[in-house]
Amino acid sequence: MAFVRISGLSSEAGKNVTVRGWVTTVRSSGKVAFLVLRDGTGLLQCVVVKTAVSPELWERFAQLTLETSIAVSGEVRADARAPGGFELGVSDLTIIGASPLDYPIQPKEHGIDFLLDHRHLWLRSPRQRAIASIRNELEQAIHDFFYERQFLRVDTPILTAAIGERSGLFSTEYFDEGNAYLAQTGQLYGEAAAAAWGKIYTFGPTFRAEKSKTRRHLTEFWMIEPEVAWNDSNDNMVLQEELVSYLVRRTLSNRRAELVELERDLSKLESIKPPFVRLDYGEAIDLLRRKGSTTTWGEDLGAEDESLIVAEYDKPVFVMNYPKEAKAFYMKENPADPRTVLCDDLLAPEGYGEIIGGSQREDDYEKLRQRIVDERLDLASYEWYLDLRRYGTFVHAGFGIGLERTIAWICGLPHLREAIAFPRMMHRLKP
Amino acid sequence: MAFVRISGLSSEAGKNVTVRGWVTTVRSSGKVAFLVLRDGTGLLQCVVVKTAVSPELWERFAQLTLETSIAVSGEVRADARAPGGFELGVSDLTIIGASPLDYPIQPKEHGIDFLLDHRHLWLRSPRQRAIASIRNELEQAIHDFFYERQFLRVDTPILTAAIGERSGLFSTEYFDEGNAYLAQTGQLYGEAAAAAWGKIYTFGPTFRAEKSKTRRHLTEFWMIEPEVAWNDSNDNMVLQEELVSYLVRRTLSNRRAELVELERDLSKLESIKPPFVRLDYGEAIDLLRRKGSTTTWGEDLGAEDESLIVAEYDKPVFVMNYPKEAKAFYMKENPADPRTVLCDDLLAPEGYGEIIGGSQREDDYEKLRQRIVDERLDLASYEWYLDLRRYGTFVHAGFGIGLERTIAWICGLPHLREAIAFPRMMHRLKP
Repeated sequence: MAFVRISGLSSEAGKNVTVRGWVTTVRSSGKVAFLVLRDGTGLLQCVVVKTAVSPELWERFAQLTLETSIAVSGEVRADARAPGGFELGVSDLTIIGASPLDYPIQPKEHGIDFLLDHRHLWLRSPRQRAIASIRNELEQAIHDFFYERQFLRVDTPILTAAIGERSGLFSTEYFDEGNAYLAQTGQLYGEAAAAAWGKIYTFGPTFRAEKSKTRRHLTEFWMIEPEVAWNDSNDNMVLQEELVSYLVRRTLSNRRAELVELERDLSKLESIKPPFVRLDYGEAIDLLRRKGSTTTWGEDLGAEDESLIVAEYDKPVFVMNYPKEAKAFYMKENPADPRTVLCDDLLAPEGYGEIIGGSQREDDYEKLRQRIVDERLDLASYEWYLDLRRYGTFVHAGFGIGLERTIAWICGLPHLREAIAFPRMMHRLKP
Repeated sequence: MAFVRISGLSSEAGKNVTVRGWVTTVRSSGKVAFLVLRDGTGLLQCVVVKTAVSPELWERFAQLTLETSIAVSGEVRADARAPGGFELGVSDLTIIGASPLDYPIQPKEHGIDFLLDHRHLWLRSPRQRAIASIRNELEQAIHDFFYERQFLRVDTPILTAAIGERSGLFSTEYFDEGNAYLAQTGQLYGEAAAAAWGKIYTFGPTFRAEKSKTRRHLTEFWMIEPEVAWNDSNDNMVLQEELVSYLVRRTLSNRRAELVELERDLSKLESIKPPFVRLDYGEAIDLLRRKGSTTTWGEDLGAEDESLIVAEYDKPVFVMNYPKEAKAFYMKENPADPRTVLCDDLLAPEGYGEIIGGSQREDDYEKLRQRIVDERLDLASYEWYLDLRRYGTFVHAGFGIGLERTIAWICGLPHLREAIAFPRMMHRLKP
């Protein structure tokens, strides 16, 4: 009998097939027994009629425990009430791997630490599969978006040499070269690639050795960083709008069942269309003052401030052109107000806050060099980066979008820890 | 005048446009001057006729140095002799960023260390762009291949807890949790995901802190690791054949110009079609003995042995079912010969050697546990991995394909260092 995966059953109606997978539920009326099988590609209801099978098969069925792996054979029957629209009329059943009754994750409430300790098994739940499926769709969508626009993907290094006195770095011994540090961003390398290849993006893990224990922080998270030669700050925001709208649209179109599984309010996602809201930093501060915040001009915005701002809108909000001292050294001075830089943070609605940080990059050699000196960074480490302004400098802009933050928003997850298969946090390095 | 990228010029013939980019060559007859401009998306020949422009523009043109960034405006003209099929009749030219005469990379031979020290500028060469473009195509092709087959991509952790006494690990302090180690593979996590989601693949950087200085080693390299529930060793090799053939076919179809730029012998790639050659390990040893190798049964094959084997064929070669002691603990014992395991190495032709290592995984709890004990690995660290055999064990198989090795083979590169934008080797951590 042909071996078939559950996702491929629709072309097998009326045929006899074998399906392999894991037992998720069993119930019996004494005459008819129902088993729901999970094989990772879908769920399948299997039906056994006592009078139609041998006593020994009926007995085998009664012994099945949660997460036992089995092979079941029988006829595929269309049934609108069954998950996936098909059920299997069982004629044979083989137990492949038993599952003792102490299987850790039972159909009851478990604490979050217990679930994270058993993350390798927790992944089997319908909710975790839905999240993984949406993550997969978003990653493919990101690659498709940039491939169609002729960007080249660049894999920037994780192991990097000294980059001054920046904090929150994981470090490791690197042969006789001293310490290497795990990259917090691929941007500087991305800028070199943009000068070479025009339009590029990175897609990789980034690291923060910060002692934050919020629901919005992981120590290891994935980031996508496009960088485009000749884009200015406005072009940069247009690209962000297009990308984010595309990601939401594609998830709604290709992963609607998974969003429903997560009980996501789809109407909130349906309204994500360009143009997004644009607020100058000064306007954002005014808005915050009216709403009772004590943040004053010159400070960066905290998570609470971000929530106050997005509560006003049902769309993502750009906050643009922050004061220089609140942002990184490489951002371009704003010609219209040199106290500020040409940058944007994109805040997701429904309180999700910052998912993107972007900026036009400082392309003036002298100004960039001075910023490096002013911030007491190690000038020698940045000589190669300054070369990009020394030899044929160019207007360019880019941004970083946090993958887990974007997934958490689109899926409606309260915490980033569910947005990645094996999350890494301050107290979480296992499994 | 509309700003256009060089790759988009084909729809602009007869129109006046502005192009921005970097000067790669300038030559002048005294009456007509030619400039080749690079913008990362292509090359454009720009023509200035002395009598048709102002003396001052002619003068500006004469001052242009290598890698000066400029904006040139003029009419787009079809010209079959020009690179890309179009040239620009220049009516205006603006210098954006000067480039001093000390630009490090000149049209002459440079040593490899000098080039790697200036990798951020070396990337601008046509050869490096061709490699980057093929890398991009291969990465997208890999994602498309698995997406179409309904695999879920899983981003496995880079920071991992103690995994026994394995050597060649980079380590870093991880808050109060002791040391964390940079992942050498995502496979063990991939197996947990395969039990949950059926068909998965990883795509990420992996690390080796090994003091090897060969042309086939990087300390940081990218690996793709598919893992499939219910696949056995044969299914696993079929999937490898399909993937590798698809990658070669797609590069030939979509990146032929880049292969030509690299002077790749296309006929060698045209013959890469399934089925590949399959040699049992014992047969491989016999072949090696006939060819004068001193390798004996029980030993792993070295790079020289691999070259001797592939020299016999114009296709990739699977060497299957190695002796247990030559391979990792998680490989399934071969029922037909328990001295061996169900595994395969895929060797690329033309001396490129191993690009894939794959195996069916040990699914017997007791046998796997015993292997962990025998190899003196820390059992406690592997309890979660053993859970996958404790609760509903399953036949499964997977493999790891090295991205840079695959790129080097397809592009015909003598060394892995050109296959990635910023290579990391024992003595190379910068830029």
